[in-house]
Amino acid sequence: MDAPAPDQPVRVEVGLGDRAYDILIGSGLVARAGAEIASRMPGIRAAIVTDENVAATHLEAFSASLESAGIPATAVTLPAGERTKSFEHLQQVVDAVLDARLERRDVVVALGGGVVGDLTGFAAGIVRRGMRFVQVPTSLLAQVDSSVGGKTGINTSQGKNLVGLFHQPGLVLADTDVLDTLPLREFRAGYAEIAKYGLIDRPDFFSWLEANWRDVFSGGAARTRAIAESCRSKAEIVARDEFETGDRALLNLGHTFGHALESAVAYDGTRLVHGEGVAIGMVLAHRFSARLNQCSPDDARRVEAHLKAVGLPTSMAEIPGALPDADRLLAYIAQDKKVSRGALTFILTHGVGQSYIARDVPASEVLSFLRENHPG
Amino acid sequence: MDAPAPDQPVRVEVGLGDRAYDILIGSGLVARAGAEIASRMPGIRAAIVTDENVAATHLEAFSASLESAGIPATAVTLPAGERTKSFEHLQQVVDAVLDARLERRDVVVALGGGVVGDLTGFAAGIVRRGMRFVQVPTSLLAQVDSSVGGKTGINTSQGKNLVGLFHQPGLVLADTDVLDTLPLREFRAGYAEIAKYGLIDRPDFFSWLEANWRDVFSGGAARTRAIAESCRSKAEIVARDEFETGDRALLNLGHTFGHALESAVAYDGTRLVHGEGVAIGMVLAHRFSARLNQCSPDDARRVEAHLKAVGLPTSMAEIPGALPDADRLLAYIAQDKKVSRGALTFILTHGVGQSYIARDVPASEVLSFLRENHPG
Repeated sequence: MDAPAPDQPVRVEVGLGDRAYDILIGSGLVARAGAEIASRMPGIRAAIVTDENVAATHLEAFSASLESAGIPATAVTLPAGERTKSFEHLQQVVDAVLDARLERRDVVVALGGGVVGDLTGFAAGIVRRGMRFVQVPTSLLAQVDSSVGGKTGINTSQGKNLVGLFHQPGLVLADTDVLDTLPLREFRAGYAEIAKYGLIDRPDFFSWLEANWRDVFSGGAARTRAIAESCRSKAEIVARDEFETGDRALLNLGHTFGHALESAVAYDGTRLVHGEGVAIGMVLAHRFSARLNQCSPDDARRVEAHLKAVGLPTSMAEIPGALPDADRLLAYIAQDKKVSRGALTFILTHGVGQSYIARDVPASEVLSFLRENHPG
Repeated sequence: MDAPAPDQPVRVEVGLGDRAYDILIGSGLVARAGAEIASRMPGIRAAIVTDENVAATHLEAFSASLESAGIPATAVTLPAGERTKSFEHLQQVVDAVLDARLERRDVVVALGGGVVGDLTGFAAGIVRRGMRFVQVPTSLLAQVDSSVGGKTGINTSQGKNLVGLFHQPGLVLADTDVLDTLPLREFRAGYAEIAKYGLIDRPDFFSWLEANWRDVFSGGAARTRAIAESCRSKAEIVARDEFETGDRALLNLGHTFGHALESAVAYDGTRLVHGEGVAIGMVLAHRFSARLNQCSPDDARRVEAHLKAVGLPTSMAEIPGALPDADRLLAYIAQDKKVSRGALTFILTHGVGQSYIARDVPASEVLSFLRENHPG
């Protein structure tokens, strides 16, 4: 009886002292959400924040689950899409929570993907200077990335996620079944972040993914394991550096190039979604590391081969439409929030699972590299 | 040489672990601000947030001080008044800080009273998920209250300060000279909060104030001492309970009644300003405590006598214009954010300097008391 029963979720603890919380990962958690929340937070009321797409599929079941657990709840349904991460919708959520007369110990629940989670966590962090927050991530990306670590935020005209705060959830419920309703392209994009954890510091996990990625895509125990291992990996890094003053930057592997590419297509999701940018960015980070003699070209090829095998793009040439030139891409990189005092900070690697933070990377090297890899 | 030189500010440390910071209180600190900031935060850039009134009197000197200390700065000047604590102006400040391309370790400076401080601290807390924040409070109320403890926030249609976060400043510079430019009514209102610290848990300080309040009003060493003692008092309470889950509620002495009265006049500052509401509220809190046999009626009379002596209002009858009836006032109290689970929480007292948190105060007692004290 050592193994959990098949319907028992895997529990990952995010060890943040008095802000520690559990992530439960497994099947059927939307239906069991009310019971899981009520047992940890007795006597609370809730506001559910979701978007139109998720509401159509999951809101009824989720609301019923809260109701049957005796949690009174109101729901706010927002437009789907990145544009919802705005001051306008932040204000809408804040108003809804206040209008529901929720108190500080009541809970705001994010039922949705990264957009809903980031916006809702921000609102929960500022209503009454910080309410309880529960995440029910419904996309793979949200389950393995944005639901761990407490980063919340919105976008402004100056850039993405430049406004927000750190607000840790009290509980995360990652229902692996809901991922079956995702389009394949979105699942793949989330998978890029799973692969990232292997590439940062878990070479065995990356090897396991190379052998088992098909099972992760098809669901069941392998999917749960991959998500749990990803959450565990991120949780460990976050526990070392909750407020991103050091090691947490490792999580940006592939993201500096990736964000520049997302900026280059003006965040047009028909051309490039975040996880695809990260996939290309991780390949570029490994190739760039090889160019700087930090890792073997074989490692770079290995990363490229795996991401290509799962169907992710791995080069700038695969992005439909014309890209700005290398100088412009460098300007996007320099604009990125991970720039400190004008020096370029990159996550480089000594090989699969051996990433590190490189500060003061010369812009000239980046520019030459971008020119060599530019499809135009 | 034990006493500090006359031009040396008094330093009060707010002991919050890795969020600890200094409050400097004294003469000429606006002119020395650049040097004080630069010595603690070398190499930073700054955004100064202020309002039209303060800008007219102090912005030039303050900007010159930063410039001479080698701190590049941009300034944002907002309309004066409580209405500035809005989502709209929060967004304006956030935009200005982002447009100035400030980074996370740069500083946002609040040069102004409580409105500017609360709004600016909120903006500093959410730009890049938390930038450095320096407060230069220019009102007495801000020097002794809102600049200590890290509470920030804005108002919404549902109420005041219901949205915000805890974001501790890195430094507070309380220039006692700037208070000479305040209208007497505003100085008096700030004084109510000074008296509050004596009434919470510093009976000797309250006695000292009874004997020396005229010197506090006229300036010099007594003023500096009163402000420093107030900051020290608040700092001690905040250090015990940074996130207001317990003892920090003591700081609400006089505020539950006071906020209800402010609501009752729709926050019309021509009828009642915050400190006046607190003064009346503190008298009511002592009278209510006496009615509940918690403190002697003599203590209530003593509090009333002192606040009356300094020129503060001490009864509802002194508020110009008609007030809503007692039932309506109770409704305002029940709406106050310090209500938890529908029970009424009050700060009551066993006497001067012996305040305590009373939970589950029966609404019927409050209602009877309000009826007895209602002027209508």
